[in-house]
Amino acid sequence: MRSPLLAALLCCLTAAAFANEGKLDYEHQDKWPAALDKAQSPIDIVTAKAETAEDNEPQGLQIWHSVTPVDKVEDNGHAVQVDSHSTEAMIRGRHFRLAQFHFHSESEHSIDGKHYPLEGHFVFKAQDGRLAVVGVMFQAGAANTAAQTILDDLKPGAAPAQHSIDIATLLPKQRGYYHYLGSLTTPPLTENVEWYVLPAPVTMSQPQIDAFLSHYKRNNRKVQPLNGRPVIHYDS
Amino acid sequence: MRSPLLAALLCCLTAAAFANEGKLDYEHQDKWPAALDKAQSPIDIVTAKAETAEDNEPQGLQIWHSVTPVDKVEDNGHAVQVDSHSTEAMIRGRHFRLAQFHFHSESEHSIDGKHYPLEGHFVFKAQDGRLAVVGVMFQAGAANTAAQTILDDLKPGAAPAQHSIDIATLLPKQRGYYHYLGSLTTPPLTENVEWYVLPAPVTMSQPQIDAFLSHYKRNNRKVQPLNGRPVIHYDS
Repeated sequence: MRSPLLAALLCCLTAAAFANEGKLDYEHQDKWPAALDKAQSPIDIVTAKAETAEDNEPQGLQIWHSVTPVDKVEDNGHAVQVDSHSTEAMIRGRHFRLAQFHFHSESEHSIDGKHYPLEGHFVFKAQDGRLAVVGVMFQAGAANTAAQTILDDLKPGAAPAQHSIDIATLLPKQRGYYHYLGSLTTPPLTENVEWYVLPAPVTMSQPQIDAFLSHYKRNNRKVQPLNGRPVIHYDS
Repeated sequence: MRSPLLAALLCCLTAAAFANEGKLDYEHQDKWPAALDKAQSPIDIVTAKAETAEDNEPQGLQIWHSVTPVDKVEDNGHAVQVDSHSTEAMIRGRHFRLAQFHFHSESEHSIDGKHYPLEGHFVFKAQDGRLAVVGVMFQAGAANTAAQTILDDLKPGAAPAQHSIDIATLLPKQRGYYHYLGSLTTPPLTENVEWYVLPAPVTMSQPQIDAFLSHYKRNNRKVQPLNGRPVIHYDS
């Protein structure tokens, strides 16, 4: 929601930008209004309104080198984060490299209004700087080996990470996704992010979930308005 | 440029966002600072600093249905614009449809500091809302048939556009490009745009260029800071 003051200000700016007989004023470009907060994340995914992916281009989500050294496990001030760089992905025909992954509680995205206890964000980066974040929902069930390794690395006095984990065990086998264009969910909230939210949940044991919650009881940004953005469903 | 007031405000906001023992304050998300103006267009393309495109994914730029009906030719308040929807493109493996194209004078992008008299922006849209804009440089030389058709449609009293043009005649045969992630170059300056600037110029006659300049002597946004964004060169 914009404040009335900001709305009034933007109105004046818009008028100023087009003051030159209805034409955009290129002599005063510093007065142009910008609206750069319309494509934010997370969102609530309304599955009944999602569009089916077109079938005239590659749509899959392949991940390889999933057994990867862990460079660092840390509490970065807004999440438990794992830095790990050797995993690669081909996402809709384009090549990405994993930069890091981290966890939010409860989930930032919701699916038809339902939140999960945890959401993992696997942040991939392409050569041109494009970010693609794969969002994974976690729920209570069987224990997760990779999650336990991460939790062990976070314990006080734990040795620096010097081992590998298999990231595939933190991802569901079903790689269908809901895709939309959004933003980082922490400052600076940059809008240059392709989101791929996987609706098939992965399990951790309840004690594992509780251990993540002991670091962050709540670190989920509230859902943001869709503002007309399409959400695209790809069924793997 | 940020005003000192805004800079001070952002500083306070940043402090407020992290006030909770150095952790991001999820109870006051409305106070989070956003930095959404770091990836703007146009830019100066410094060819010696461009990275070579990785060869492990499709990089080409194919355009088909280039002979297309013209829905509308208009002066939209900031440029001469042609609405035309039947042309499609496959850009780096992804499917796009042409929405419109328009002209800036002089060119908005510069290549090693050099501007051209005109730059055409061919705006393509993907299913997920992603925009890809193909930038074409025009210089004086042989007359251009499609450009003349557009200029004729702009004359007072001209009949509404009811014909086709071949967009391929407005594009260079060499489809090598400089690619980077940027923004719209007019308000709202949205940052969700993949740019593909083609360095091989296309010709119009000097009278044709002058005719475009009679509509807009100057409608080019000044070049914006790169802020560390990679520029990727693909040599077709």
